[in-house]
Amino acid sequence: LSDMTKMATDDYVGFTFFVGSMAMMAASAFFFLSLNQFDKKWRTSVLVSGLITFIAAVHYFYMRDYWDAFQESPTFFRYVDWVLTVPLMCVEFFLILRAAGAKRSLMWRLIFFSVIMLVTGYFGEAVWRDASWQWGLISGIAYFVIVYDIWLGKARKLAESAGGEVLKAHKILCWFVLVGWAIYPVGYILGTPGGLFGIDFGVDASFMDVVYNIGDAVNKIGFGLVIYSLAVKSSK
Amino acid sequence: LSDMTKMATDDYVGFTFFVGSMAMMAASAFFFLSLNQFDKKWRTSVLVSGLITFIAAVHYFYMRDYWDAFQESPTFFRYVDWVLTVPLMCVEFFLILRAAGAKRSLMWRLIFFSVIMLVTGYFGEAVWRDASWQWGLISGIAYFVIVYDIWLGKARKLAESAGGEVLKAHKILCWFVLVGWAIYPVGYILGTPGGLFGIDFGVDASFMDVVYNIGDAVNKIGFGLVIYSLAVKSSK
Ligand SMILES: CC1=C(/C=C/C(C)=C/C=C/C(C)=C/C=O)C(C)(C)CCC1
Ligand SMILES: CC1=C(/C=C/C(C)=C/C=C/C(C)=C/C=O)C(C)(C)CCC1
Repeated sequence: LSDMTKMATDDYVGFTFFVGSMAMMAASAFFFLSLNQFDKKWRTSVLVSGLITFIAAVHYFYMRDYWDAFQESPTFFRYVDWVLTVPLMCVEFFLILRAAGAKRSLMWRLIFFSVIMLVTGYFGEAVWRDASWQWGLISGIAYFVIVYDIWLGKARKLAESAGGEVLKAHKILCWFVLVGWAIYPVGYILGTPGGLFGIDFGVDASFMDVVYNIGDAVNKIGFGLVIYSLAVKSSK
Repeated sequence: LSDMTKMATDDYVGFTFFVGSMAMMAASAFFFLSLNQFDKKWRTSVLVSGLITFIAAVHYFYMRDYWDAFQESPTFFRYVDWVLTVPLMCVEFFLILRAAGAKRSLMWRLIFFSVIMLVTGYFGEAVWRDASWQWGLISGIAYFVIVYDIWLGKARKLAESAGGEVLKAHKILCWFVLVGWAIYPVGYILGTPGGLFGIDFGVDASFMDVVYNIGDAVNKIGFGLVIYSLAVKSSK
């Protein structure tokens, strides 16, 4: 208990870490405990939604303590979280399109590019800071490939042949990837000294933490809820 | 365990935090583990009841430790708890009226006003103490809108068209919001120096913690039990 610290009333970063951890925890309980109500073929998708928020919940507990102890961005933990949860989101695209004939190769392709995106991003943000724009560029290309695949590539075609609720859900998830995920590269650019063609945005790192924390909640819980409601509509 | 402290035998605040955490924890287990016995369409409501007490349980564990460490009201944690659980209570109103044709817009409206109520309340209580009556007024208006909506507005009409057990449960929940929830603004006024038109009530902050802890238990567990028994009566 001597470890407990007071949180300043205007510590918005700490606040969003705390709310984030609780929201992720509650969302996981929600997804896990709702499993029984779905037809068998939808359960795995909802279970994976729960895994994504559950992994995030545990990371958020760490990140909160880290922030509390050092008042510094927990970049390391963020990337560990992403490297587990982003590939799982790729799995979700595959799972909802499976009935329409999606092949495992589509899943592995998306996973592969998501890992490239995150590993190169980490190098640029935390290891080789001097070459951050080169690493960021590789990362950005991998991100672009994912966006292309789901918006215009094979995944899109499968979603169209599935039609109905699957197509609707796929389209919403595509918007998550295009808009919701875009906050991370934007934050990367703003947080890099001389981030874009030498322009220095001088954005406070702790401001970016607030943006990431809100973004994560939307991207993980929102993404999961889209799949949850697809499962609700498709069961029974 | 070296962190463990003795609790004074007359530390009633600490006592209610401790009992509160245990009661919330037990209530969550109760709601979660009863899910299977209900018809599918009632499960989500009972699951959300469990989420409300579960989120509260985790916050109570923190608040207990905080109280233990600083002998000070854990205002911050209370608001984090509320900002997650009060919107979920609004979701409950929507869920039980869904069969009667409640629209999602009703849910979002209630959620919106509950968030306004809590955020402005937090500003008045913890950030801009000098302007606490202005913030409290805005918060109170938002609270009033919620009360109006469920007692006399659209939600009331839907409950009446549903009739039967749903109407009965809706009415009980309305009383929770009008009477049970009212202890929080009353506490806010009593706890503010010169709270009402300059009258200073000089109420001890720790007295208010005892009231809040008892109120929370009634409002969260009681609210959940109303929904639980509605689900029992409507299943089979
Ligand atoms: C393109 C790009 C990036 C993309 C990161 C993304 C897209 C992360 C997504 C995270 C998600 C979805 C978390 C879930 O909540 C980095 C690594 C910042 C480096 C700069 C270039
Ligand atoms: C109107 C008003 C308030 C209302 C708070 C309420 C209504 C809180 C409800 C909490 C619940 C229901 C917790 C669950 O157990 C504040 C923020 C104190 C500020 C002053 C004005």
